[in-house]
This record gives sequence, C-alpha cells and structure tokens, in this order.
Amino acid sequence: MLSVLSREKIDRAVRQALEEDCPFGDLTACAIVDENAQSEARLVAREPGILAGRDVFEAAFKAQNPSVSVEFQANDGDSFAAGDCIATVSGPVRDILTAERVALNFVQHMSGIASYTGKFVEAVRGTKARIADTRKTTPGLRCFEKYAVSCGGGINHRMSLSDAVMIKDNHCAFVQQSGLSLSEAVRLVRSRVGHTVCIEVEVDGFDQISQALDGGADVIMLDNFSVEDMRRSVDFIAGRAVVEASGNMSLERVPAVAATGVDVISVGALTHSVRAVDLGLDV
Amino acid sequence: MLSVLSREKIDRAVRQALEEDCPFGDLTACAIVDENAQSEARLVAREPGILAGRDVFEAAFKAQNPSVSVEFQANDGDSFAAGDCIATVSGPVRDILTAERVALNFVQHMSGIASYTGKFVEAVRGTKARIADTRKTTPGLRCFEKYAVSCGGGINHRMSLSDAVMIKDNHCAFVQQSGLSLSEAVRLVRSRVGHTVCIEVEVDGFDQISQALDGGADVIMLDNFSVEDMRRSVDFIAGRAVVEASGNMSLERVPAVAATGVDVISVGALTHSVRAVDLGLDV
Amino acid sequence: MLSVLSREKIDRAVRQALEEDCPFGDLTACAIVDENAQSEARLVAREPGILAGRDVFEAAFKAQNPSVSVEFQANDGDSFAAGDCIATVSGPVRDILTAERVALNFVQHMSGIASYTGKFVEAVRGTKARIADTRKTTPGLRCFEKYAVSCGGGINHRMSLSDAVMIKDNHCAFVQQSGLSLSEAVRLVRSRVGHTVCIEVEVDGFDQISQALDGGADVIMLDNFSVEDMRRSVDFIAGRAVVEASGNMSLERVPAVAATGVDVISVGALTHSVRAVDLGLDV
Amino acid sequence: MLSVLSREKIDRAVRQALEEDCPFGDLTACAIVDENAQSEARLVAREPGILAGRDVFEAAFKAQNPSVSVEFQANDGDSFAAGDCIATVSGPVRDILTAERVALNFVQHMSGIASYTGKFVEAVRGTKARIADTRKTTPGLRCFEKYAVSCGGGINHRMSLSDAVMIKDNHCAFVQQSGLSLSEAVRLVRSRVGHTVCIEVEVDGFDQISQALDGGADVIMLDNFSVEDMRRSVDFIAGRAVVEASGNMSLERVPAVAATGVDVISVGALTHSVRAVDLGLDV
Amino acid sequence: MLSVLSREKIDRAVRQALEEDCPFGDLTACAIVDENAQSEARLVAREPGILAGRDVFEAAFKAQNPSVSVEFQANDGDSFAAGDCIATVSGPVRDILTAERVALNFVQHMSGIASYTGKFVEAVRGTKARIADTRKTTPGLRCFEKYAVSCGGGINHRMSLSDAVMIKDNHCAFVQQSGLSLSEAVRLVRSRVGHTVCIEVEVDGFDQISQALDGGADVIMLDNFSVEDMRRSVDFIAGRAVVEASGNMSLERVPAVAATGVDVISVGALTHSVRAVDLGLDV
Amino acid sequence: MLSVLSREKIDRAVRQALEEDCPFGDLTACAIVDENAQSEARLVAREPGILAGRDVFEAAFKAQNPSVSVEFQANDGDSFAAGDCIATVSGPVRDILTAERVALNFVQHMSGIASYTGKFVEAVRGTKARIADTRKTTPGLRCFEKYAVSCGGGINHRMSLSDAVMIKDNHCAFVQQSGLSLSEAVRLVRSRVGHTVCIEVEVDGFDQISQALDGGADVIMLDNFSVEDMRRSVDFIAGRAVVEASGNMSLERVPAVAATGVDVISVGALTHSVRAVDLGLDV
Repeated sequence: MLSVLSREKIDRAVRQALEEDCPFGDLTACAIVDENAQSEARLVAREPGILAGRDVFEAAFKAQNPSVSVEFQANDGDSFAAGDCIATVSGPVRDILTAERVALNFVQHMSGIASYTGKFVEAVRGTKARIADTRKTTPGLRCFEKYAVSCGGGINHRMSLSDAVMIKDNHCAFVQQSGLSLSEAVRLVRSRVGHTVCIEVEVDGFDQISQALDGGADVIMLDNFSVEDMRRSVDFIAGRAVVEASGNMSLERVPAVAATGVDVISVGALTHSVRAVDLGLDV
Repeated sequence: MLSVLSREKIDRAVRQALEEDCPFGDLTACAIVDENAQSEARLVAREPGILAGRDVFEAAFKAQNPSVSVEFQANDGDSFAAGDCIATVSGPVRDILTAERVALNFVQHMSGIASYTGKFVEAVRGTKARIADTRKTTPGLRCFEKYAVSCGGGINHRMSLSDAVMIKDNHCAFVQQSGLSLSEAVRLVRSRVGHTVCIEVEVDGFDQISQALDGGADVIMLDNFSVEDMRRSVDFIAGRAVVEASGNMSLERVPAVAATGVDVISVGALTHSVRAVDLGLDV
Repeated sequence: MLSVLSREKIDRAVRQALEEDCPFGDLTACAIVDENAQSEARLVAREPGILAGRDVFEAAFKAQNPSVSVEFQANDGDSFAAGDCIATVSGPVRDILTAERVALNFVQHMSGIASYTGKFVEAVRGTKARIADTRKTTPGLRCFEKYAVSCGGGINHRMSLSDAVMIKDNHCAFVQQSGLSLSEAVRLVRSRVGHTVCIEVEVDGFDQISQALDGGADVIMLDNFSVEDMRRSVDFIAGRAVVEASGNMSLERVPAVAATGVDVISVGALTHSVRAVDLGLDV
Repeated sequence: MLSVLSREKIDRAVRQALEEDCPFGDLTACAIVDENAQSEARLVAREPGILAGRDVFEAAFKAQNPSVSVEFQANDGDSFAAGDCIATVSGPVRDILTAERVALNFVQHMSGIASYTGKFVEAVRGTKARIADTRKTTPGLRCFEKYAVSCGGGINHRMSLSDAVMIKDNHCAFVQQSGLSLSEAVRLVRSRVGHTVCIEVEVDGFDQISQALDGGADVIMLDNFSVEDMRRSVDFIAGRAVVEASGNMSLERVPAVAATGVDVISVGALTHSVRAVDLGLDV
Repeated sequence: MLSVLSREKIDRAVRQALEEDCPFGDLTACAIVDENAQSEARLVAREPGILAGRDVFEAAFKAQNPSVSVEFQANDGDSFAAGDCIATVSGPVRDILTAERVALNFVQHMSGIASYTGKFVEAVRGTKARIADTRKTTPGLRCFEKYAVSCGGGINHRMSLSDAVMIKDNHCAFVQQSGLSLSEAVRLVRSRVGHTVCIEVEVDGFDQISQALDGGADVIMLDNFSVEDMRRSVDFIAGRAVVEASGNMSLERVPAVAATGVDVISVGALTHSVRAVDLGLDV
Repeated sequence: MLSVLSREKIDRAVRQALEEDCPFGDLTACAIVDENAQSEARLVAREPGILAGRDVFEAAFKAQNPSVSVEFQANDGDSFAAGDCIATVSGPVRDILTAERVALNFVQHMSGIASYTGKFVEAVRGTKARIADTRKTTPGLRCFEKYAVSCGGGINHRMSLSDAVMIKDNHCAFVQQSGLSLSEAVRLVRSRVGHTVCIEVEVDGFDQISQALDGGADVIMLDNFSVEDMRRSVDFIAGRAVVEASGNMSLERVPAVAATGVDVISVGALTHSVRAVDLGLDV
C-alpha cells in the first residue's frame, strides 16, 4: 500500500498519546511492578480483521522505552482470524504495561478502519470500481486513517483542501451568484490553479454533468444519484472524465453501485464511524 | 457537565486540524470565491442526537478567521431533532468553506459520543447506576471524548494512568509472582501512593473480592461477571467499596446490569467505536 | 492570486522569527527608548519591484505588540517604484524598532521573489506559457515563497511530494532495473494512486515522450531540451498532455522557450536564488 | 569555524522541512520504488564553491530513515571544484529519494552563502579587515546562515537584538528628541546594560564619531562613508574603538574599503541575497 | 520511589534548557577547545544531601551529544556526603563543557528539594505522619519537583487540579453564597465527579469538620490549626477520614504536629523555596 | 529595568503552566462554582518585598479566560509592605480560581528573586559595585529570573553561552594542555569570535590577572578571592578591565567586597536558591 505516514508523524502522535495517558507517571505499574522485571506479552486477535498500524504499535512501546522490542507475525494489510497471535512484545514489564493502552488504541482504531474498508473492497470485487475515503476523518489522525484505508485495499481521495480542487454544491451556489455558468467556473479555476492540480466537480443532475465536462473537469462526482441515474451518467460521460459515486454508501448498496460502471465509490463512514477491532495484549 | 476541556486544548486541536486539512491553502475556495464575499450558513441536524462540541465548532471558524461569528441555538448536552437548526455561522464565505470540514468533523464526532452515551444513560434510568467511559479513547482526543461523555450524561472514569490506581489482571499476575497476596498488594500500593489517590481493583471472582476489600480497595471492578454474579457481589460488598461492572456492555444488556445494584457501569464502546452524528452545514 | 498561506502559518513563522532575533529582549531599544514613546514609520521602496508579504509584515509588528497598527498603500501583487511609500506603521517606538528587522526580512525576501517572477512573466507575455516555481525553496518557507511567486504572476507547481506524482530520471533508473517499460511504469503508478492525483513524467528524449503518452501521463516535462527539440515535442504531443519545459531557464532564454508553444516553464531560480528587494523603514 | 549550530536546531529544522515537503507521504517513490530496494547516490558539485552544511545534509537523510548512511569526502569550509564528489549516500532507495530535495535545499543554500562569503574574504586578503554578516537573514534560518558565513571565512556580527547594543540612526533620532547628546546616550546605555555587553554606534559623520568615542563606544560603524572618509575616520579613531564599515558593499568595492584600515566590513548581501550553489544527487 | 517523570518529559525539558542556555552555540568552548578532544569529569558533592535527578543529569549530556557517557555511583534517593563522587562523565570536552551548567542546574535544584524533604521526613520519623508536597511548584517543573520530593521520602499530594477535588476557603465562600451547607456541597460534588475522584475539604474550625465528615469527605485538611486543635480534631475524626495538617510548617514545628496523630503534613516550602545543593563538575 | 522578557515567552510559559496544573479541567471549580458567577479578588502581600512579574500574573488569568481583567496598584520594581493590596482581579469566579495557583506561583517566585536582589543592592549602596546574576537559573525560566533580578536593581550577566566568552578554570585546564599561555589563549579567542563579543576571564591568582590583561580581556573575574586580594587586584588592574568578584557571596559579606572597588559582584544564590515571597489571593 502507499504510505502516507512518515516516521516523524508516527513518533509525534505516539509521544502525544503517551503524554495524554500518563501526564504524571503510571501510578499502578510503579507501585506494584519491580523496575527491573522483564516479561513478554502477545497481541492477540479476539475477532477476525485486517491489520493496520504495525509501526505505530511498535513505536508506542519504543517511545516509552527503547529497550522494549516488538516482533510481528503479520504485515499491515494481512487478514487475521480470531485467536491469531499478531505480535510479541518483550521487555521491562513496567513499560509494557504503561504503553499498552496507547499502543492498543492506535492499532485497534486503524485495524478497525482497514477491516471495514476491506469489506467494501470485497463487496465490489470483480468490478472496476475502487473504494475511496473522504476528508471526514478524526481530527489530528488523517494520515493514520487514510493509511489504514489503503491497508484495507481502498484508495485515498484528496488528502486535504490543498491538493485537488473539488467544486461542491456550496461553491456552485456562489458561482451562480456571480453570474458564471458551471463550465465557465471550471475554466476559471483551471486558469488559476497550477498545472498539476486535478479538478473534480460534484454534480446533482445531468445538466451539471454536461457543463462540468464542457469546462474540462477531470473527475465528476455523482452526489446521491440513484443507481439508475448513475448508470445513465456513466454512459453519458463515456470516459471523458473519471466518475465517482458518493452519498450514503453501505455494504448492502455498493455492489449495485459498482455494477453501474463508476470508477470510484467514496465512503465517508470508513473513517467517520469507526468500530475498533477487538485486539488484546496477553501478558 | 464537568468541563475537562480547556480553551488552550481546544485552540491547539483546532489549529492542528486546520493545518492538517489545509497545509497549502484551500485551492477551491480561493479560486472560486471572492475574497470579500460574506454569507451565512446553518448547522442543521440530519438525525436526532445530543449536542457536544459547541466551543470547538466555534473555535474552528475563529481560528480560520476571527471575524467569522457563530451563534448557537442549543447548549452542549441538549437534545436535538432531525431538521433542527443548531447554529448559525456568518462571515467571509471563503473562511466558512475552508473551516467547514474541520468544524463538522469535531462536532459530529463529539455529538456522536454524547448521543450514544445518552442512550446508555436512558437505558439505566431509575437505577442508581452511572455510566462511565474508559481509557479506550482516540489518541490525542481524550479530553474531547471524555467531555462528550459528560455531555451525554455519563461520568468520567480516571483520565489517565496518573490519577487513580487500577490493579488489573496483568498486574495481578505480577503480584502473584512476587509472592504477595492481593490484599497485601493493595496495602503495599496504598503505602506508596499519595493520600488523595483512589485504588480500584479489577476482580474476576469472589475470592478476589474478599481480598480486595481486605486490602482496603476503594472501588472493585467486576470484570465480565454474569448478571447473577454481579448481584451476589453487590450483596457481598455491601457498601464497603464502590462497585463497577465492566466488559462487553451493550444497550440491550445494561438494564439488567444496572438492576443488580452496581454503582457504575463502564462502557469502552462509548469512545472506541463512535458513529458520527449526521450534521450538515447549509449555506 | 491563490493564497497558499494561512493565518496560522504566518503567525507561527513570525513568532519564531521574533524569538530568533530577540531571545532575551532588545537591549538597545529598552536602554534608550522610553516605554511609552509613540511614533510612526514608513515602509519605503529604495528600488522598483512587486509587493508580496503585506500580511506577514503586519503580523510581525502585531505579534510584537498588538497595539502597533499598519496601514498599507499597496496590495500584494502591485508594482511599486523607487521612493514609493508602501505602508505606514504606527505605535510604540520600542516595539516598532524591535520588530523592524523581522518584518523587513520577510517582506524584502518575498517581494524579491515576486519581483523576479514578474520579470519572467513579462518576458513570456503574449504566449500561452505560464511561469511556474519548483520545490527548490528555502526550508521552512515554502508557503511564503510559493505565495510570493503567485504575487508575481506565476503559478505553483506541486506543493510537495504528496500532491502530485513526478517520475524523474532517478525513478526511471529504478523502473528500468525492475524490467518495466516507462509506459508500464506510468500505468502501474496510476493503478496505485488516488483518482485525483496528477502524473507528470520527466523525459530527456523523444522515445520517452511516446512512452509517457502511451502510459497516460497528464504532464510531460521536457528536461534540458533545446528550443528546437521543444518545438518538435510540442508538435508531437499535440495536446495529449500538458507540456512543461525545465532546466536552466533565464530571463534571456525564456522568450524563445515560450515561443515553442510549451504550456508551462518552471524556473528553480525563482526561489533558490533570491535577491532581496531593497525596502527601508524610515522613522 | 565557530559552531553556532546545535544538534537540536539541525534536527528540528530538518524534520520541519521534511514535513513541509512530504505532509502525506512521497506518492512517487512509494508507487514506483520497492520498499526494500537499496542503492547509493553521490553528491556532486556542478560548479566550484565552498562547502557548508554537512551535518544538516546528513541529518535530513537520517531523520527520514536512520538506516541511511552518509560518507563525506570534504569538510565544511573546504573548497570544491565542479565535478567533485562531495559525499556518498547509501541506504533504502525510497528514503534517499524522499529526503533528497530537502537535503539539497539546505546544502545548496548554505554552500551558496559560504561560497559568496569566501569571495569577499579573498577580496580583502592581505588587509586586517574581517568580513562580517548582519541580521538580514532568512527568517528561521539565522543559525544556519551565520554558520555558513563562518564556513566561508567570515565572522559573525551580533546574533540578535539580545547580545550587543547597536545604536542606529532610528535610535539617534529618538535620543535627540529626549535632549541627550550622543555621548550622554552611550553613557546612559552603558549604565543600564550588563558589564559583558558590547556597545556599537552607527555614525554618519565625524561629529558623531567624536561623541561616540567620548561616550565610550566599543565599536563604531561607519554607515555609507566614502572610502576617503573611512580613511580619515580610521586615522581619527586611532584604535580607541573597533571600526566597522557598512553599506552597499560589493566584491568590486571591498578591496578599497579594506585598504582604509577598517577592522570589519559588514555585508548584508551575504545572507539576504543568496544564490544557491549547484549541487546534484546522482543515483 | 514512584516515578512521575517520563522519558519524554525529561527529554523535552533538557532540550529546552540547552536551547535556552545556548541559542547560538557555546562561544567559549568552540573557540578554545579542540573539536576532537576527549576527557572525563566528576560530579562531586560540596555538601551532604540526597540525590535526585540522575536521569535528567545524564539526559542533558546525551541531548548535547549522544556519545557522552555518564556513570553514576549513587541512585536517586541515596544520601551523599561532602566530597563524595556521585557520577563520572566522559566524552568530547566541548560537549561536556557546553551541557555542564544545564545538567548541574537540574540536579542541584532537584537534589535541593530531595534533601530538604529528607529533613522533614527525618523530623517526623517514628510517627505515622507522612510528608507531602503541594501545588506550589516552579512553573513548568512540577513533575521534576514532585519526583524529587518522593526521592526525599515524601509523598505527592494531588498532581494538578484534575486529579482530586479540594474544596478550599475560596470555594466555601462561594458555597455559602449559593445557600448550600458544606455537607450539601460535598455531596453535590460527589454526585458530579467520577467514582475514582478523592474529595478533600479544607477546614478552619470544628464545625466545618463535622459537616465535611457528614458530606462524606475522604480527606480533611486542617488549615493553620494549633497543635492542640489538631489533636482534638484527630480524636474527633477518629479514622472517618484521612487527616492532613497544613500551613507554615517548619522543621522545628513538624515533630509536634506529627505527634498529634495526623496522617499527612503538607509543606509548601518543599518546592516554593528551594535551596540548590552545591554540586560541582570537576574536569 | 531592561526587559529581557517578551510577550511570546510570557504567553508560552503561562500556557504551559496552566496545562501542567490543569491537564483535564479543574474538578473542584467546575463541580462547585456556577459557570456564570462573577467576582473580584485581591492580590495581597503577606510580607514586604519588591514586585516582579506583573505581566506574567495578568497573562495567566488572560490565558485562562480573556474576559478576566487585572488592575495593578504597583509596578515591577516597586517595594510593597505586608498588607498592601498589589492588584485586583475580576471576572468569572471559575477562571479566577483555576488560574490562581499558576499566577501566584510565577509572581511569588519572581518577586522572591527581586526582593532578595534588592537586599544585595541595598547592601552595596554607596559603592560603585553593581550586583549581577549568573547562569545558575531554574531550567526553562531564565528570562523570567533575569528579569526579576533587574526588577530588584541588579544587572544581568551574560544571558547564555552564546553572548559572551567566559574562560573558566575548566577551559584553562584545556588551554594548558595545548601548550598555550593564558594570554595567547585570550588572543586566540579574540581572533575567532565576532567583534562585538566581550571576553571575560576567570582567574584564581595574580599571575593569571597579568596574563588576562596582556591577552586583552574585557572583564576579569576574581574567583573566590579574599577581600584583601580583591583590593590588591583592583589596584593592579587599574581600570584596564572591568573587575568582577564572585564566589559564595552573602548579604553579610558583600559590603566589604564592594568596598574593595570591584565593578561587579555576581551572586548565584539570587536565582539558584529562591525563597518565594508570600502573596495571597483573597476573594
């Protein structure tokens, strides 16, 4: 998978999370556990899923104490079954116990996203549709969540407001006020942005599709179209732009959506409504 | 509700999130929207829920441009219905559009937690049981999530490893190795921590309850007990310690758990498996 | 111009620069100037140029003391002549003197870039060629410098490694080792990146142009081509991709380059070899 | 040379620059280059110059991935010729390509300053004049640029407003308003600052020189004096203070300035108008 | 002792302190000491005391240069006599000299606190009273100072406003205004805070003790009570709450206070009026 | 007094301290005090002293809530008597109570330094000796402490290792190893540092004084000299360098030291052994 995560981002997030969970030391571990005690713990899956966040899990322990070592039995993107041992953590007991929750919070959240994404990818297998995420991510964790989407087999929609143009309904309202047609607006944007910037237009009807194509849009996003209308749109666009379908996508609905021939299906729920995968650390 | 959130924490999180979503400017808004255009937008609920995150929502717009103003029609902790207008945002169109996603990501996430918490609180109404969160929070957002729990009517379990002792199974394993009984271990901890520190012991059977009480535990946490065993434990403890029930709590199960007479029911899912509430910004 | 600068970025850079220039107070101003003395100063051009950095200049004084006020007589992107008064600064003398150097360092550097860019834009006027910057920017100041390029009439090439693909000679070397043709490599990349990502290929000969087109490149960059070869390439590509010319561009050479019909001319010197514009603050 | 750079400053600047250039990962390298591929690259001079920034160049790769190793064939302060191999970089191809631009941006900028400084130093060889920098540095990079000046053989003027007093024309204006003579002002300053603080006075005529000397100035700066007036000033001061010449110094003019016997010639252009030295990384 | 210090906190504080003491390099060491010179230095006690801050002392040198190594002959909490060698530092002379002051400032301050605490602990030996610190700590160094208190044998009172309730005179004033009795106020607080939060009430008379007990306070703090009144209070409370004595405690007075049977004596001076222990680094 | 403190430094320190004292909210104030309650409090002196830290005290409340207002009845550097009201704080009760401790911790510490410095200044009144601080400051608070020294009437010795050279015994040891005489070493340093850098030499005997003078030292520091030897040294130096006396200075001893004619007396205890002044906030 593409890595949108950097060593620096992981380090910073992990340190911030440890600080958040332990502003004045781990009262329990320090009071009970001998400073020199060593042990080993296993990261075990309590339910099936797809792994994401290996390096983050390891970094949490290493940030707590570099002498903790972590051995993984699986790679990001691998599926695991309930009961599988995913990793072994060994080192000072105190530090393992202190960093445990932070390490688990990351890997459970990220694997939750990967696992859910994987189900969508599975649901559209055999079609050309690719599953994409959105900007509806948890504040501060976009890279972690977009990376997890790629671990689950999805692709990343634009990372931020700075790397692609997306003309949405709220922008269109403004365009109309200024007396421009949508196609003129797209051309105006093209003249203003750099030559490597992709322009996507969100449309809610056939008339807008024509105008977006006419203006030279690279991607057309069908917002809340019926499956029937998606099919007609794909036929009409006929390869002149990438076609993205969006709006309340569910595991039940995506097979039909994918069958219409759209190129991309974007799913906000991949990141805005995450269920953690149940993973435990057994000492 | 108790505010575990500070102005400083909100400001920092909001700025980090804007930076994350807009590292090199908002290409679309800058290319389309006139710098001086002013407008108004409404935050509207697309489904019912409980509000959490007012100040964060406002801070996102203010951080983008202090001249944006936000008027709320509801307070944190208030319930709203689908279609309700929750707030009005007015100011420069560009800045409203640029900060929209960040503001929504926060308030949808936080209100999602408050709304889910509210359902648990509702489910135990009439009993003395209080609903509590856990440390299974999204890394970097603990204050935001614990605050949202309180907006939904829940209480906050310990905030971190530094403010209360919690002797869990992994610690017990270590205690046994060192030849101490559980009651001796609790007493040892008491002698080491400050006099304002609460000591909670996680137990998985009746024998451990006796020992925890004997050692002077302030709170006893019944981990994955059956409802019947909870009832017996409550009777046995008889007010000598606060009783907390934990482990795979669901909306279906908590009424029966609450009926056993436990003081607190802690629910990891309140924060580790959040579904965003659907709120939209209509310009 | 497009604003790739945010309030947050400006604030942070300005505070860091003040800290750098004044870690333990301004010895001179504190020793000589009365704390309550008020005055006015004028930002005056000592040579002609194009303005960039208004908001940064103002922010430097405001960060030092919010009671300093700055009035501008020109906008970013405006040309000025030697002797022109660009802005008036008024407030406490101490704070004006303390922040003066930081404010000037920013506006002189940014206006230097805008002015130099303006000369390139002027040199290709009447052709369809647009002048673009590169990633050869001063570390830590990319947004400030790319913004200054847009003030001078240029466009921004990709902002970072994260917003567009650019397959360069070093990547091609690797592609060859792996046994892929360039067109296969472009297709492989397309299958891996998101649907809003633009793919640019740097080529050093006609054979590569064919392959890049065949693979579906969005932009083809002619690296160090002769003017004659550029012309032939433009004809050959015939609108199937955006054509960018690059490599040792100078004010003398760009008119001929632009006349070949290329869409974009990228110039590293816009940002890697900046001459500050001479601006002074007269009290 | 004196090192005004610390490990901490280098680390922070390099991490910030990598973050700036790669907020969401290196799309191209991740899509094309195999994660495990190893290679070697050479830092080669495309033109002659003086090296500055070794540790920074290395730190950029190390921050990206500690397993990259860098071997230098030259030290900071050494001259190199076009074609010289300055360093060898080896390790994971992905990380070398990702950090390449940041590493080059630093070393090209710093070596540009060192090389230009070296020309000034060469131009005054045989005189007692030393070449000094100013506070006209790129915001955020003062240590890096002042260090580069020392690599080129120059000395550092005061680092900031906090380490030496410099009474300039704007301060003199204020002094006059308060009815103090310049000599009284210098004495006043001396009574207020610590005993390790050097006091420099900028003068624009002979009368001020007398007063500055009378007040006990440590350094007198001749601002925009003619060469003839400089000579007379040096004679007049006769060792009672260090003499610094400043104002529009160029390579053409400094030999004559140095011949007047001034102790120091300060040159703003060393850092405010930097031309990057052309260095390339050949894989 | 309990460690309220984390690796991360130490690292951050040490880096900040080095930056503060060395913003632009160590002029003296760089000018005099050869870059490659190696040497050894000894940390020697000039007066007796108790050690605190080993890891911080070492971290200061390591942050300056990881190749410096530090060997300790004593642990935190150990007593030392005048003349004792506490640690040996070896590595590059330059870096040892540059980090010396920062390393000493930390260890002298922390050992000063530990030594002073140790005297209080000694003064109450044989009673059940424990010596506790307060929130009157040096801004930014709370963890370091509370840790030093534990090295001296004291216990830590609450770490911050977030980990225990303490109803003080200023709160009581507010309670009265709102028409609540103190016992009602304590019950109200109990209903609002989480179940792991300890509630302490500061009282200034017997009437308030009754009310605090009635409301269910966990800890009662006798503020500025006479020794006689303390004794009566201890008898009256009779184990129903932890009893803390506070207010102008001195080494002379604490034995009598401890003899009253109070559980805890809190001493602000432990951290708000620190005398550094005299330790020197002999090269 | 000279202000070595900046708005930015104050803001940062105050925010960090509030965060430290309130990581998860103020449990007590939130549980007891109504969100809208307003009140007024007075900062009252419990003992006499000299004020330092006005702006910091105010900034602590403002950072907590900008709507708190603070009115001062005294300026930094003013003396106050026991019982004096120094300032009035008004605004939301919750925020006043939450920020109280942080505001007090700063102003008590800084006023403690100013008051102690004032006693030294008083003790040498009538001589030409000035009282100076050292680099033995609390890590992270150097600016705050050096500023407080100036409030008490003292002067600031060098701020850091970067603004003046100080050749101490440890450096001399190294000088000897390299075969240089002390005077040669001073000249070597002079040739390497910038022309605004002051050179101070620490000496422990008459022979070193000669050499330091011969090398051109600006300041000579007499380390642990007897009063008699100080007098002889002052006579011998005879104005050729500034004379500083240092080493175990006490209030009892400084009058005699000052009477020897030394220019400066530096006192480490001003900042390394601070006793907080007792100030209280009465609501």
